[in-house]
Amino acid sequence: MHERSKAFSELRERFKDRFTTDAATLIAHAGGKAHHTPANPDAVFFAESTEEVALAVSLCARERIPLVAFGAGTSLEGQLSAQRGGLSIDLSRMNRVLRASASDLDCTVQAGVTREDLNQALIAEGLFFPIDAGVGATLGGMVATRASGTNAVRYGTMRENVLALTVVLADGRVIKTGGRARKSAAGYDLTRLLVGSEGTLGIITEVTLRLYAIPETSSVAVCGFPCVGDAVDTAIAVVQQGVPIARMELMDRRLVQAVNAYSGLSLAMRDTLVFEFAGSAAAVAEQIEKVELIAAAQGAVGFEWASEIEARERLWAARKDAFYAIVAQRPGGRGWSSDVCVPVSRLSECILHAQAALDTTQVPAAILGHVGDGNFHAVFSVDPARPEEMAEVARINSEIVDKALSVGGTCSGEHGIGTGKIGYLKRECGEEAIDVMLALKRALDPFELMNPGKVFDAGDPR
Amino acid sequence: MHERSKAFSELRERFKDRFTTDAATLIAHAGGKAHHTPANPDAVFFAESTEEVALAVSLCARERIPLVAFGAGTSLEGQLSAQRGGLSIDLSRMNRVLRASASDLDCTVQAGVTREDLNQALIAEGLFFPIDAGVGATLGGMVATRASGTNAVRYGTMRENVLALTVVLADGRVIKTGGRARKSAAGYDLTRLLVGSEGTLGIITEVTLRLYAIPETSSVAVCGFPCVGDAVDTAIAVVQQGVPIARMELMDRRLVQAVNAYSGLSLAMRDTLVFEFAGSAAAVAEQIEKVELIAAAQGAVGFEWASEIEARERLWAARKDAFYAIVAQRPGGRGWSSDVCVPVSRLSECILHAQAALDTTQVPAAILGHVGDGNFHAVFSVDPARPEEMAEVARINSEIVDKALSVGGTCSGEHGIGTGKIGYLKRECGEEAIDVMLALKRALDPFELMNPGKVFDAGDPR
Repeated sequence: MHERSKAFSELRERFKDRFTTDAATLIAHAGGKAHHTPANPDAVFFAESTEEVALAVSLCARERIPLVAFGAGTSLEGQLSAQRGGLSIDLSRMNRVLRASASDLDCTVQAGVTREDLNQALIAEGLFFPIDAGVGATLGGMVATRASGTNAVRYGTMRENVLALTVVLADGRVIKTGGRARKSAAGYDLTRLLVGSEGTLGIITEVTLRLYAIPETSSVAVCGFPCVGDAVDTAIAVVQQGVPIARMELMDRRLVQAVNAYSGLSLAMRDTLVFEFAGSAAAVAEQIEKVELIAAAQGAVGFEWASEIEARERLWAARKDAFYAIVAQRPGGRGWSSDVCVPVSRLSECILHAQAALDTTQVPAAILGHVGDGNFHAVFSVDPARPEEMAEVARINSEIVDKALSVGGTCSGEHGIGTGKIGYLKRECGEEAIDVMLALKRALDPFELMNPGKVFDAGDPR
Repeated sequence: MHERSKAFSELRERFKDRFTTDAATLIAHAGGKAHHTPANPDAVFFAESTEEVALAVSLCARERIPLVAFGAGTSLEGQLSAQRGGLSIDLSRMNRVLRASASDLDCTVQAGVTREDLNQALIAEGLFFPIDAGVGATLGGMVATRASGTNAVRYGTMRENVLALTVVLADGRVIKTGGRARKSAAGYDLTRLLVGSEGTLGIITEVTLRLYAIPETSSVAVCGFPCVGDAVDTAIAVVQQGVPIARMELMDRRLVQAVNAYSGLSLAMRDTLVFEFAGSAAAVAEQIEKVELIAAAQGAVGFEWASEIEARERLWAARKDAFYAIVAQRPGGRGWSSDVCVPVSRLSECILHAQAALDTTQVPAAILGHVGDGNFHAVFSVDPARPEEMAEVARINSEIVDKALSVGGTCSGEHGIGTGKIGYLKRECGEEAIDVMLALKRALDPFELMNPGKVFDAGDPR
């Protein structure tokens, strides 16, 4: 619908084949990795600098052309579909680490840098960035969805680890939302407002992140439990006792089966916790001793140690692929993931409730959890072509969310709202809080050009 | 100016002596603890619940009466002066701990609870809340100024430790900005937008906070250094090596002198670091060993251990009173504190620069620093009746801020902007970012009733 716009002509002329309306490229930018309905943009622009993004945004703003920022396309709630067409600005070529400081434990990267590439660049300095969202995710995308992952129990989420952003606003102006100080009480926290805004308030082009020293030593263990409640109670006790565990992940029985099949492991078929301990040798030894005692008290069935790097990496790679392992249980399946996060004291109850709900369906599904944080996912492998099945999974997801909200939890721990959880967000926050969010949205994006149709039904453009 | 308003009549009638225009009470709510010009409100209302705050706000909103939320009056940047008169809503009677959960490591308190009272209530559960702003500060006030203090190097600031807020908006509506989940990716981060908003976007009435287990053991040490650079380099190395130190505070030579006099200590007259180590016995032993090695390499002059609880508490009490120790160096003096925070790699340079600036004045002054975070304060004891002196201190403060900004730092690490740092905020953020903040402000407070004249010159009411 915007093919003939002046903005598009100008971008095409100026950037040649970095601006494209090629069908395959449009489809690749329609946001269709999960179960949500994809929607093609009218064009894709591969930007290489903040200035280029600002130019594209200001050209489009003049003609009220909607904009979607695109990183790696790994988001899980339909964040990238171009609901009203317009321009998809692909930031994957903005993939330079601009600076990293071992003294200050921080770095600045372009938004298209992936976490894997950043860590590759940092390894020689003995540093790393811990937050691990989906494989291949860009750091800009991780900021936009307020991502977290398996290391959050120790290091926090993107909320805690972003120091500053460079952002292109809806009218093309560029702001920096902070400096390099590790803390600040200077004015409104624009950084945190942008973290988790899912492209609806501006386009993030550069990110300043906290870094951490690679721990002296680390060690990984797996252990099974008689039932999922025992596993969760173990995790809760570990957190309560203040053990600075690096990771602590739940894989329920169903997931162990899927992961064994997908990644060629041979884990015992039990509700299982995977632990990573990290720190100085003495600290790790002490952590392990405490955790073994706690787990034993909950009936843990033997610790297995993966002390060799290779075995550890294979195990974590399998865990990272868990989403795909579930989806692959069915040819052509698409992933549909719940993402609730609840107070840990209510976690057993919520996971048992979810497991019972999963028992009511034939759709392949399993549960994984960042249990130290109270966050877990029921992941289904669905066939979007079967409306009855989609309705069934929607009903189960809705039950899982309702249960989480009833105990003070949230519908989204780390995937964001996108198009998939708009209804849940309303239920969770209430009308007044949604009104406040919309007032902020309209203040910064009066024409609703920035990723329209995400986070909330923002109504018609004005 | 608002004495005859309907709102005031209604509040007086309904709340009797909890609504007052008594002169002494007005003066006590004029915000005049530091060097800023105080300004009386027209009336003070002692609220006892969120509903009462909402009622007062909606009554005042109807007649466009400005509102200032008041906690304990310990803020340091003139946040509490009633620049345009109106109603000061005193929240100090909202002092109940509403719930605390050892399983979830969280609690919900009314905004008027002080950190000291909260920790008193938690001690039996083996829990504590670490962030320690000024003595007697309320938790609502600490949220509003995004406070931190001596424990931030280990536990973060209010930014990282608030899970959710109950807020009365400018029109009297009440929202909750989050639930009890430890992480969330559900919509805009209204919690973080309110943290540090200094009463300009809404009035915080309830706060849900993260809690921590009281460490098994802790230990305090003091040591002097040949010069301030060596002390700072020690602190930086401790952070870089990932030692999970609980606190690490710099007192420069001048401050040691002031503190010895004010608190009856007999510390050696050197640039000094005070360390607190906390954790399991083994972890603390390991930390101490590492820190002693690092300090020795920087020429530290002997560690002195304060292992008895009494000695430790005396030392920390003296450190907490440092601001008053400096101010008391002159009869009738008022405190004026800089609050810059810089990347730690530039900290030595910035502190040396500040010390040189202090050498140019006769005004009593000294430097203290939360050096693990890069945050330090030059505190002056000024006489507001001497304009030349005030101009001199303003000039020195301005130089300290300019230096901080030139290395990527911030004008405020933890005290906020209030009326005192409005000009610095502009310099730091630039016009576009200030415009964004103002757009947000206007979206939530279109008539500029919420703490007007703070954070920025918001222009005339509309």
